[in-house]
Parts: sequence; C-alpha cells; structure tokens
Amino acid sequence: MYKIAILGASGYTGAELIRIISNHPELEVDILAAHSKAGLRMEKVFPHLRSLKLPPLIKIEDVNYSNIDLCICALPHKTSQEVIKALPDHLKIIDLSADFRLQDAADYEKWYGNVHQALKIQNEAVYGLTEFYRQDIIGSRVVAGTGCNAATGQYILRPLVEKGIIDLENIILDLKCAVSGAGRSLKENLLHSELSEGTNAYSVGGVHRHLGEFDQELSKIAGRAVNIQFTPHLIPANRGILATAYVVGDIEAVNETLSQRYENEHFIHVLPLGESPSTHHVRGSNECHIGIVSDRIDNRCIIIAALDNLTKGSSGQAIQNANLMLGIDETMGLNLVPLFP
Amino acid sequence: MYKIAILGASGYTGAELIRIISNHPELEVDILAAHSKAGLRMEKVFPHLRSLKLPPLIKIEDVNYSNIDLCICALPHKTSQEVIKALPDHLKIIDLSADFRLQDAADYEKWYGNVHQALKIQNEAVYGLTEFYRQDIIGSRVVAGTGCNAATGQYILRPLVEKGIIDLENIILDLKCAVSGAGRSLKENLLHSELSEGTNAYSVGGVHRHLGEFDQELSKIAGRAVNIQFTPHLIPANRGILATAYVVGDIEAVNETLSQRYENEHFIHVLPLGESPSTHHVRGSNECHIGIVSDRIDNRCIIIAALDNLTKGSSGQAIQNANLMLGIDETMGLNLVPLFP
Amino acid sequence: MYKIAILGASGYTGAELIRIISNHPELEVDILAAHSKAGLRMEKVFPHLRSLKLPPLIKIEDVNYSNIDLCICALPHKTSQEVIKALPDHLKIIDLSADFRLQDAADYEKWYGNVHQALKIQNEAVYGLTEFYRQDIIGSRVVAGTGCNAATGQYILRPLVEKGIIDLENIILDLKCAVSGAGRSLKENLLHSELSEGTNAYSVGGVHRHLGEFDQELSKIAGRAVNIQFTPHLIPANRGILATAYVVGDIEAVNETLSQRYENEHFIHVLPLGESPSTHHVRGSNECHIGIVSDRIDNRCIIIAALDNLTKGSSGQAIQNANLMLGIDETMGLNLVPLFP
Amino acid sequence: MYKIAILGASGYTGAELIRIISNHPELEVDILAAHSKAGLRMEKVFPHLRSLKLPPLIKIEDVNYSNIDLCICALPHKTSQEVIKALPDHLKIIDLSADFRLQDAADYEKWYGNVHQALKIQNEAVYGLTEFYRQDIIGSRVVAGTGCNAATGQYILRPLVEKGIIDLENIILDLKCAVSGAGRSLKENLLHSELSEGTNAYSVGGVHRHLGEFDQELSKIAGRAVNIQFTPHLIPANRGILATAYVVGDIEAVNETLSQRYENEHFIHVLPLGESPSTHHVRGSNECHIGIVSDRIDNRCIIIAALDNLTKGSSGQAIQNANLMLGIDETMGLNLVPLFP
Repeated sequence: MYKIAILGASGYTGAELIRIISNHPELEVDILAAHSKAGLRMEKVFPHLRSLKLPPLIKIEDVNYSNIDLCICALPHKTSQEVIKALPDHLKIIDLSADFRLQDAADYEKWYGNVHQALKIQNEAVYGLTEFYRQDIIGSRVVAGTGCNAATGQYILRPLVEKGIIDLENIILDLKCAVSGAGRSLKENLLHSELSEGTNAYSVGGVHRHLGEFDQELSKIAGRAVNIQFTPHLIPANRGILATAYVVGDIEAVNETLSQRYENEHFIHVLPLGESPSTHHVRGSNECHIGIVSDRIDNRCIIIAALDNLTKGSSGQAIQNANLMLGIDETMGLNLVPLFP
Repeated sequence: MYKIAILGASGYTGAELIRIISNHPELEVDILAAHSKAGLRMEKVFPHLRSLKLPPLIKIEDVNYSNIDLCICALPHKTSQEVIKALPDHLKIIDLSADFRLQDAADYEKWYGNVHQALKIQNEAVYGLTEFYRQDIIGSRVVAGTGCNAATGQYILRPLVEKGIIDLENIILDLKCAVSGAGRSLKENLLHSELSEGTNAYSVGGVHRHLGEFDQELSKIAGRAVNIQFTPHLIPANRGILATAYVVGDIEAVNETLSQRYENEHFIHVLPLGESPSTHHVRGSNECHIGIVSDRIDNRCIIIAALDNLTKGSSGQAIQNANLMLGIDETMGLNLVPLFP
Repeated sequence: MYKIAILGASGYTGAELIRIISNHPELEVDILAAHSKAGLRMEKVFPHLRSLKLPPLIKIEDVNYSNIDLCICALPHKTSQEVIKALPDHLKIIDLSADFRLQDAADYEKWYGNVHQALKIQNEAVYGLTEFYRQDIIGSRVVAGTGCNAATGQYILRPLVEKGIIDLENIILDLKCAVSGAGRSLKENLLHSELSEGTNAYSVGGVHRHLGEFDQELSKIAGRAVNIQFTPHLIPANRGILATAYVVGDIEAVNETLSQRYENEHFIHVLPLGESPSTHHVRGSNECHIGIVSDRIDNRCIIIAALDNLTKGSSGQAIQNANLMLGIDETMGLNLVPLFP
Repeated sequence: MYKIAILGASGYTGAELIRIISNHPELEVDILAAHSKAGLRMEKVFPHLRSLKLPPLIKIEDVNYSNIDLCICALPHKTSQEVIKALPDHLKIIDLSADFRLQDAADYEKWYGNVHQALKIQNEAVYGLTEFYRQDIIGSRVVAGTGCNAATGQYILRPLVEKGIIDLENIILDLKCAVSGAGRSLKENLLHSELSEGTNAYSVGGVHRHLGEFDQELSKIAGRAVNIQFTPHLIPANRGILATAYVVGDIEAVNETLSQRYENEHFIHVLPLGESPSTHHVRGSNECHIGIVSDRIDNRCIIIAALDNLTKGSSGQAIQNANLMLGIDETMGLNLVPLFP
C-alpha cells in the first residue's frame, strides 16, 4: 500500500480524494492536514466520512513525511507554493492549486497577481492533463493538477487544434459550472438563497484565470498564439461542468479527430455524432462525455463536454496521475459509476 | 373593467396570466377554459390560486364570448389555430402558442411540421414583441406572443442588427433556460430526479423551433438572410432565461446602441458597461436586464440578457400587449417586483 | 403617503419589506439604513430591486427621523434593542428581531443569553401576531414581530388551546423550514453545496429560541404552563415553513374550532378536512394555509400549516401590522398572489 | 462470479443495483429485463451507465434463467407477484416490490387493494431487514425487500419496542422523503417545477402503505398490536430519507439500547448522544446514521435516522441480502463512501 498525505483536507477536493482513495486497492490515506480546522476529527469536518477510519486533521507544519510516498496538496494558490517549497525533495507531489500550472513566471504573475516563490519547482512541474501528458507524468516528481474548467475545454479543443482542422481565430467556450468548483468558502453568492433557482455569468470578457492555461497549452500545440473566448456561468447544482464549444470547421473532420483521439482512452467517451452529454450522467465519476453536433450553418460545429469538476476535473485526475507516478495501473480505483439520480 | 377569457388556463402561462390580472386595476378574469382539466375548480388545478375568486374551469367549446373583451389563448400550437379560427370575429385575441408567430405559411410548416389551418388570421396577426411592434399592436385584433427564447435573444440582437454594427455571419446565442418553459407536461426529462443538480443542452445544431422567429425577424431588419447559431440548455431552475450572445463588433457602438434603444423602455434595463445580469434578479417580474461586456479579444462583445420566461417571456408580455390593445397604459399592472430570494 | 424607514435593509426581510411597500398605495420607503453595507446603492446590495427608485443605504446613526411615520427594524436581536432604545419617542416602531417578543426579562435572558437593555420598551411592546392581537396593535406604538416558526405553529395551536380541546401534555410540532429564515449570513451550513439535495434537523430537543414565544403565549392562553415539543428541520428551499402538528383531541372539534376561528380572517385559509397544504402554494404571499387530517388512531389529529417565512412569517406580517398602526385597511398592499412555479 | 438477473431494470432501483454490482467483486449483471423499455440499450435508458459493459434490455418473458444464480425483481407491486410466481423453483429471488412484505393475505389486500396471487411464495418469503432477519435470510430462497420508509423507521423503533422501554401508545414518526422513492413515473407532482423549492405532507393520517409493515413487525416484536403515527413529507431532493421519531421513554435507556444493538452492525452508526444526522451525509452509501436527543420535556426522546432510500433503503439492502443468500461476506461491494457535496 502506498501512503498518501493530503494537505488541505478540509475542502471539497480533499474530501473527494479521501472518498476515492478509500476504495483504492493500492493507496491509503496516512496523513490529513489542514489550516483552520486542524485539531478536529474528520467526521466533524465531513460527517459523510464518518464510517471511515481516518487519521485526525493535523497542522501542516506538524506533518512527518518520512513514511509518505505521495503528497497531494489541496490548498489555495499562493499558500500552496509556500508549503510545497518546504517539502522534502524525495517526496512525489501532486498540487491541485493553480501554482504550478503555468510554466512562465510572468504569466503566473499576470493571472494571479503575485510573484511566484517557487520557480524551481514551477520549472519541474508537469501539467497534469493525464491523457496528454501521460509519459511526462510517469517520470515526474511534481504534477500540477489542471483547472477544472481548463480540463473540460481542453478535452474538446486540444485534438482539434493539434490536427489544425478548426479556425483558431473563432473558438468560443461557454461553460456552465456547478458551485463546488468555488470550494467551501463563505461567500454571499455561494449561499443557497442566492444561488439556487437561477443562473448568471461570471468572470465575463476573458478575465477568468483558467484562460492562462488555455493560452499556454493551445498556443504550444498550435505553434502560435491562440486566444479563445471563454465565459463561465454558475448553475444551481453542486457538481458538474458542461462546456459548450462553438468552432468553425468540418464536422466530419471534427468527429473523426475526436473519436479517434479518445478511442483508447478509458475515461473519455465520445458519443455518437449528434448526441449531447449531460452533467447528470457523470456525477461522482472520473468520466468525461463528449458530444459533437453539426450546426445548420455550414462548417460550424458545436462540441459539448461534461465532467464532474471534483472528480475528473480535480481529485479523480489527481488519483489517475498518482497511479501513473507510483507505477500502478492508471485506472485503478477510478471505475466509479456515476450516481444517478 | 375589461373582461378577459383565458383558454388553456391549466398550464403555467395560464396561471401566470391569472396572477398578473388579479392585481391589475382594469382587467378581470371572466372565463377560464381548458381541455383535460375542465370541470375542476381552479384551486384543484393550481392550489396557489386558492384565495382568488375565480370562475370554474370550463370546456373551451362551452365558452360564451359575448361579454369578453379580450381572449388569451395559452394552448399548444396546432390546437391553438383550430380554436382561434372558430372564435367570433369581433374578439381581440392574444395567442401564446407558436401558431401565428411566423408570417410565411411555408416557414410555419417547415418548423412545426403541419399545414397551417388559419392562414387568414396568420396574415393578420402582429408579432408580439412589444417594444418593437408597439404601434402595430395598438391597432391590432390578433397578437402572436413571441417565443420566450426568441424574445430574450431579440432584445439583444435587434438593435444591433438594425444599426448594422455587428457581423451578421457570426452571431452565437447560448441560452440557459429554466424548466417551466417546457410547460406542465409529463415528460421523463422534466422530473425532479432527472433535472435537478445538472444541466445539458437540447435542440442542438440549429433545430430549435424558435429559430424560425429569429430568422424571420432578423432577416426582415437586415434586409437580407440572417441565420444565427442558437443552443439552448436546460438548467435546474423553474423560472428564467439567461441568453449569452457572442457578437463581433465595436463595444462602444454596441453599448451606445443598446443603451439608447432602451433608455425610454420601462421594462428593459441596460446595466452599466461591464456588469452581468442574473435570472435570480428578474424572477416573477416583467423586467429584462441586459449586460454588455467587452472581451479581451478585440472587437468581440458578450451581451447577456435575463428575463423570466413565464412573465416577460410570455404572460407578462401578453398583458403588456393587452394593455396596448385595450387602450390602457402599457405598464399597468406590470410593476411586479422580482421575488428574491 | 406614510413614510417608512427601514433599519437593516440589507437583509432578506429588509428586501421583502421593500418589495411589498413598492406596491402599497399608502406607504413609501423614505429611508434605508444598514450597518456593514451602508454607503452602497440598493441595486448593489439587491440587484433585483434595480428598477425601483430607492434612497441610498445610509448608516443607522445618520438617519433623520423627522419625516418618518413608522420605522421598521430588521436588525439582529441585541443590536435591535440598542438601536430602538435611542429612537425618538414619537416614532411608531415595528421590530422584526426577537428583542421585544418576550414580556418577561428573565425569559429573554434565558433564551437569548444577554441582559435586556430596553426594559421599558419591552413592557410597552405588543406581540405582533396580527390575528390575535389586532386591537392592541391598532393602539400601539411598538410592535414586536413574531418569530416565523412561532407564528406558523401558533396559527395551528392557539385556537385549540383556547378552546381547551386538545391535550396540553402532548403537543408535538415538527417544522420544515426553508433557508432564508436563517438570513443572509455567511455560515458553512447555508452554502448551496452543503444544503441542497438533503435535509437535517437542528436545535433538536427543545432548545430553539422560538420556544420562548410558544411557552409565553400558549401558557397565557391556557392559564397554566404549556410546554410543547418543537423540532425544526432545514429543507433545501429558499422560502416557506411547513409545520406539522401532532395533537390529541377530537377531529370534529379541532376542525370546527379552526374553521370558525379563521372564517373571517383574510389571510388564513383552512382547507377542507382531509386536505394538506404545501409551501409551494404560498410562496411570496401573505397567506397561511392550514390542513387538518384525522389519524387512523382514534383522537389523534395532524394539523399542517404552510406560510412563507419572509412574507406572512415576517415582512408581510409587519406591513399588516403597519396598516393597523397607521389606521389603513389591514389588507392593503398585501393581496400578493403566490408565485408558482 | 455469481450471475444476477434484474427484472425491472429501467427504474431507479434497477439502475442502483447495476451501480453497486458493477463494483462488486463476486457478482455480475447477466440479464437486464424490463417492460416498456425492452429492446433499448441501457445507455439509452440510463446514459450514466454508458461506460459499463451491460447486456441489452430484454422483455421479461424472454429471459432465460438457466445460468442465473439470483434474480432481483424491481417491478411494481402486483406485477411482481405475477412474474415471480412463474419463475423457476430453483432460483433465488429478491423482490423489491411490496408483494411479499406482508405475511398475512388479508393485510396485503387491505393495504394494496388486490387479492394476492402467489400465496405460497408469500408464506415462504423472508422479510428483508437484514440486521433483524439475518439468519432467516441466509437460508432463504425468497427475500422481500422492505419499504424504504419502513426500513428507516424500524431501525429506530425495533430495538426500543423489543426492550420494552418506550410507550407503545405514543410513537410518532415524521418522515422527510426525497423524490426518487416515488420512482421514475410520470406524475405531475414529481415534475421539477412542482417539487423543487417547497415541501408538503402526503398520505397523511395513517394511510401510507408502509404502515402495513410497521404494524406487522412492531406488533410481532411487542406481542400485542402496535400502531404508530406516521406522516411522510416530500422534500425537494433526489435521495434520502430523514425519519424523526418522537417517543416517550428514558433517554439513557434509549441511548444504551440503540448503541448496544448496533455496536457490531457494519452499516448502522449511532451518533454520540445529542448529535443529529443528515441525509446529505449518507447519499449513495449503504449507511444509516442514527441520532438520539433528549427533549426538554422529561421522558421524551427525539430519535432521527438518515439513509439513502435507493441504497440502504432498497438496492443496497438487496445486495446485502444477496451476499447472505449466496454465502458471500455480507458487506462485500457495499463500502460505498457517501457522495458529498
């Protein structure tokens, strides 16, 4: 059994890591650490984990890493780089924050507003979109988990950009995001009274931080600057991202490209041409469902991807990467059937 | 007091008409008719109307129109044209179905699949988007209430197309629609278990029937064929449409055009540049909130409109038109403050 | 027009007061004051009020009461008594906090944990359950709005205790409460992620503060100590309280007592024997629906009441009382049809 | 691997069985049958099961049982007895309908309104509340899955009645039930528009059919007739039952009895005295959480149980029983961590 430490275990991605690991045959949770809720038993922080035998929540500075095989950080960005900088060198690390996603320090500062404090690790970190960085992840020491929105969009766009079959000047991504992506933080707009029974856009106009990842990754693939339009909307649901992409290109080429690209991917399912996915049907699973539909206007395609932001978009991705880093079968512990209804 | 008959009073738009009329100083509900639920008292069909003194629900064929000033039909399309064809000639009529929205019989058949049975009335009917057909509505006998999605999108697009300030080849409308737009019909995907806690697109690829209205209206304004991309998504909420439009054009021109166009409109509110509306903030009201945001990509604008599909998108619009048709002040009975939370 | 000041206008009951007053023919909002959000325009605090012409939100200490006819305090308890103590003597006051509901200072301290600072006003204040204190309210200067749960339960229990037809030792009240009753405060259990899609009891075992009101009122009526069992549950909805009462008594007597008691009450509707109410059907209205059902066990009755906690349970009640205090028709401005769906 | 046939696989309990079995090391789904949706691939009926390799949905009359070890019927009552009557004698059977829960034919007829058609099997069937009929289930051929409400209530009441420590004349059970318990049927009150954002009681007054099970089981334990009061309420959530029991008895005895009774039960967790459970924390799991709280009134206890109606209340219970019937470890495949948020 490989021993896992989770730093930042009092948030939703922390709880999701515990849920997945608890049914994983080769991993076990050895250390749980957090900031504000340190000292509490996990069943006080997350009563749904009551039946698991879990270590108590300790302070991050009190963690002893000597027996730990892999450390997963589910901390806020900026805090994360400070904590990770101080970790022992031998430790394998997966970071779920934004701190190591952007390879360029200037990009990081532009999108996140602070000077990066751990540039050496930033250079070393592998971008954690498993299906596209598999070989790098296998040999890596530090993996940067992707943004959940960035993952969803890239599953649609990367193969199309790579094949050069869509107009790079006209890519629009309209996202519908459930609220758990915003974490467990106490903000007025996350209250049930404010969120349920309605919807609104946020970070409109190209200011959402996940655009840093899109810019970096799509430009790298295209060999030139690619800037997409990206508008997230908050929907009254707890889990799930639905990304609707509007692209200009030939539907047959689009369908063939995506179908072939994901044919052998265990968790990415391309639906039959013309069908649409739903976030209802991926809840709690590590799956991503992709639907491709031809518009009535010639050469326009609508491509829709659905995944669970906490699982495939974050903690499930982390375990998929952990499996690779530890030399375990990539899918182990991740055949989680969606919960419906 | 003007006497109103509502045909199809057992659906959500029927109930919404009753809610609005009950607080209208010049209108009163005189006749309520329906198909399957005829014979029931309204409090059995809609217990929330229990405290109102309402006439019983009778069969449509039993209605006596002799005292009626205006008849509002909230029936399914196809049924509606058959019923309206048989109404007395003197009667003022507002139809909430799709039957009289399209002026061209071939268009109607293309989008709705059946041959139109009331072509004479179809020719006579005025398209009911109040802010753009006000003068026609005042003098009309028959008004065709617009599709709720079509109304939301047109509030964004009409002034821009009219002014010629956006690229007509690149208009994308991504809608997030609450479920009451689908009516009270018994369909599996409308069950709470299937709908709550998730989202999905539907009628993807340019097959949604409201496109018939967009095509007709935008082409008429532009003086050439205009075809937009339009993808509706079902969100887990009961009321509200949020339309996110992606257009190519100058943000200053867009902002000025929309702000000026709606400056004197009582129910349409253009937010300060850069702000976004929410369906939470129009629930139960006759308001439409429009937000305009510049994208980081030059010459791209995101315009977002929010309204309540049952009110401004349907029954509120009907009463606004009824006021005009009856010579009453247009806003009478419609200053409904949104219900929040 | 009577001029109203609202202190604590940035909370949900404040917004609900504004919604109601905006359609009231004899009242107008003249002053809006708050603590933390003072200085903001109301459309920033509550964007759903955007279309109303409202005064800006000022600090409570900056309010000039010289033109004000009636002041409604929607502040937290303890703060409320401090603010009210300092108000000019001539001012009519309705307080929505708990500060003036309990007549006995020791009771107040027992349930709320602090020594009362405005005993003189506490003695003067009339308990604001309109249907039972109408005459007192008409002549009063200070009215204490009731707890929303306490109101719901008393509508069921008061007439039965008064008539002496139920066993006073066996009264159980099981409440299902929507979340807006907890206000707009930032607490983890009020987040959408934590609240939606599930339910739990809270304040179990007779520790909910509204029990102070039940004890005071029911004991006063009975002429002896009456202690009920009372368990509130949080349900994933924004508005509404459903109170299920289990009492021992004759169903005919119970039905007759409640039906007769409320026969002439405008807002309280007793359903036909055997029918059950729903919070869906009172949303946004000032109505209370009461259903009475006989249990299969002899001499046991289930009585269920539904109301909207923000309207009939709080701000609607306040306006009903304001009407009485100002000599206006009691129902003016309150014929709000429920919003459904 | 034991081969399982599921009859009635197009409903929610059918889908839940598939979800659980798909991660069960010793069971596999071999046959899926249904009525109206026979002929469809399961991914059309339940798109969330898309990634599983499942047999197609066939007609019940076309099932070949020769290789089947155990057949689970998730059909409506009455249909179920007709289907089961015709099954081969050697087959182990778990029935999730109400058809074999009541041992007395007259009781069945009283509660379900039809004459039982399979009395021989009715006599043979073991009541499937695992923790109380474990030994009988091990040796049985036919197990009758319990009602989900009946299970929840009995987990509270059975040990207390057995120990004789509560007043049998004063047992009140107030249930809050999520909507999936009503199945996937097309009924107006199950629509999202009608159900979300509100709550109401149903089957009030002792007419809910699960009372047949309470009467049978509690009377058997007590050795005398025991009739409880039982009121279910529909809450706007998809999964979960919260049962609030009001009993008369000593809190220490109650706490000790329940704690000891479930000390060695894997899935039933008694919380520390004074704590309350939540349906949020059992979603998707086979757990039942029980909280015990003393009321302020002497000798009154409130006991609250939470479980997932589709899992512990139905399909999870079925697999737990299947494990026993097949001689597998009882908990195998059932350590499902709750999904939160």
